[in-house]
Amino acid sequence: MAYEKKYMERAIELARLGIGAVNPNPLVGAVIVKNGKIIGEGYHRKYGDLHAERDAFKNLTESAEGAEMYVTLEPCCHHGKQPPCVEAIIEHKIKRVYVGSDDPNPLVAGKGIWFLRSHNIEVVTHVMKEECDKLNDVFFHFITHKKPYVVMKYAMTMDGKIATERGLSKWISGEESRYMVHQFRNEFSAIMVGIGTVLKDDPMLNCRIEDGRNPIRIVCDSHLRIPMSSYLVESASEIRTFVAAIEENGETNAEKIKKLAEKKVGVLLIKEKNGHIDLVDLMEKLGMMKIDSIMVEGGGSLNWNILKENLVNELRVFIAPKIFGGDVALTPVGGDGVPFPDDAFKFDIIEQKIVGKDIYIRMCRRKES
Amino acid sequence: MAYEKKYMERAIELARLGIGAVNPNPLVGAVIVKNGKIIGEGYHRKYGDLHAERDAFKNLTESAEGAEMYVTLEPCCHHGKQPPCVEAIIEHKIKRVYVGSDDPNPLVAGKGIWFLRSHNIEVVTHVMKEECDKLNDVFFHFITHKKPYVVMKYAMTMDGKIATERGLSKWISGEESRYMVHQFRNEFSAIMVGIGTVLKDDPMLNCRIEDGRNPIRIVCDSHLRIPMSSYLVESASEIRTFVAAIEENGETNAEKIKKLAEKKVGVLLIKEKNGHIDLVDLMEKLGMMKIDSIMVEGGGSLNWNILKENLVNELRVFIAPKIFGGDVALTPVGGDGVPFPDDAFKFDIIEQKIVGKDIYIRMCRRKES
Repeated sequence: MAYEKKYMERAIELARLGIGAVNPNPLVGAVIVKNGKIIGEGYHRKYGDLHAERDAFKNLTESAEGAEMYVTLEPCCHHGKQPPCVEAIIEHKIKRVYVGSDDPNPLVAGKGIWFLRSHNIEVVTHVMKEECDKLNDVFFHFITHKKPYVVMKYAMTMDGKIATERGLSKWISGEESRYMVHQFRNEFSAIMVGIGTVLKDDPMLNCRIEDGRNPIRIVCDSHLRIPMSSYLVESASEIRTFVAAIEENGETNAEKIKKLAEKKVGVLLIKEKNGHIDLVDLMEKLGMMKIDSIMVEGGGSLNWNILKENLVNELRVFIAPKIFGGDVALTPVGGDGVPFPDDAFKFDIIEQKIVGKDIYIRMCRRKES
Repeated sequence: MAYEKKYMERAIELARLGIGAVNPNPLVGAVIVKNGKIIGEGYHRKYGDLHAERDAFKNLTESAEGAEMYVTLEPCCHHGKQPPCVEAIIEHKIKRVYVGSDDPNPLVAGKGIWFLRSHNIEVVTHVMKEECDKLNDVFFHFITHKKPYVVMKYAMTMDGKIATERGLSKWISGEESRYMVHQFRNEFSAIMVGIGTVLKDDPMLNCRIEDGRNPIRIVCDSHLRIPMSSYLVESASEIRTFVAAIEENGETNAEKIKKLAEKKVGVLLIKEKNGHIDLVDLMEKLGMMKIDSIMVEGGGSLNWNILKENLVNELRVFIAPKIFGGDVALTPVGGDGVPFPDDAFKFDIIEQKIVGKDIYIRMCRRKES
């Protein structure tokens, strides 16, 4: 039962159209083919909306009886926000289904395929699985670990500096790189920074691309130092904003918490660890809030702490071909650092390209063998 | 008079075979074509040997009368170590010559072409000039400035560290990257390090590839601190080695200089600048010694000083996809650093590729417009 690559590629292309809109659901695309012709296609457009399969059925140009379906993820067979997709596949008398990824959700895994087969529908699994899996790194991580998928992003010079020795950092990377960062912001549920960045740069952390949506903003601020006059606080009524502080400080900070609440800033009270917020506790709480993905745009201190807790899934680094020099200029990851070279946090390069005059490198955490 | 790209490409390919052997002469390749067939090809094989044109004539399979010649660099018309190539071209009754690069040597520039034309030989200039020029970055720089072409090379982590906070650096980059460094060493006349690197690592700085040749080793050592027991001193009778020290120290260091001379280590006495050797003076002296190219494998201090003097032509950087972290871990370029982002030393990326698990980026100094 040979599949046709072009149809699954089309399904993947469709799935991607949901980027930024479906979290914490997976990206899924579906294509229905009959007599060598696409007669329906669809994708999961928005959290809570139709699943890809039903979206494709909705767009049918003729009866799907006897047709084949290409779908990037195993069809669901449980009642969630939407009725199970397998029922729609059976109703429409689809003859054969080509499936990309297995569903990692224990409520669903394998059941959809079993259900279809028990209704005499042929199912071919793992069709272009790798490409389909890649669509949903975030979803697979979130469903398995109940914690957000964390991407650490920074821009540095070719000698590893994020500011000059005077602490000036505008700008390291070029316009094209900075535009890409706004595209990333559209892709993730939340952005996270340390309080140091807020005090130094007073950033807005919004998404400045056409049709982009603003991610939730999270500030790691152990001692609630965020200024009431900062852009983040001032704009919190328009863009959801949270400050994560140590819970022990809760009472002494009651007044500040109240003031922040008036400005629509939520305060997350987090366990203490070595004088700072416990980042593992924070991630678990964010997971409960259904925040499936975070881009960390921290300084060297937050970056080190989050790496040390093994919370980083991916690195996205822009390197500008320029040299600042400086024994005391800041680097992207500070803290204590590892003692021995073998203790390094290791990644694998999955993408590298020139962006404007800079180089962009994307890496995922290396799985130790 | 359309040229055929494949013949000039072949001439470039031939020229490259001289890498590491012709310094401080240029790399040159030549191809002789008659009736759509290559009837002779050659290249400048070694400093002092035949020029590419004469090498090609030596290898003729039939008479070159009426043939065309493709040569990557303007043929010479002066008597140097070899008789002028233009005479050989006239003698062999070549009909037309396609030339790539102009010769930047004021003794030669344009004269070869004029001489050929005055003997009724057609000359087409600037054939694939950019590609041909690229062959001889080093030669063009050296002939124009009388100073070595300087390539700064280093390996760092993805967060810009060249050692852990404990100063450990073995290894940052992978085996494949380190092999490439040995290929680079074969390409340059000399390697340069700072005394800090010698005291810390006691390196050998030789070229460990098959058929490779060892570059001259130069240590910037203002106060002649190099240990007599170091590998560099011990092996100086086999590999040419120089130490550059401040000239004012010459007398007080007379004893050490004598001892080093016994071990065949040459001491270059250099002007003082801010308590260190004056790197511009050093480069001028190295130029007089016919050292046309240097790869600097310095630590952060030498790297900063050499950049600050505007002596760096090219950067070659290996970045390993790992993170050391560490506020006090060393970075590839130290010193004072630039105060403002706009003061950065700027480069343009000319090559970037994956080497093993690392990424390799090659850059040339950006020409400010």
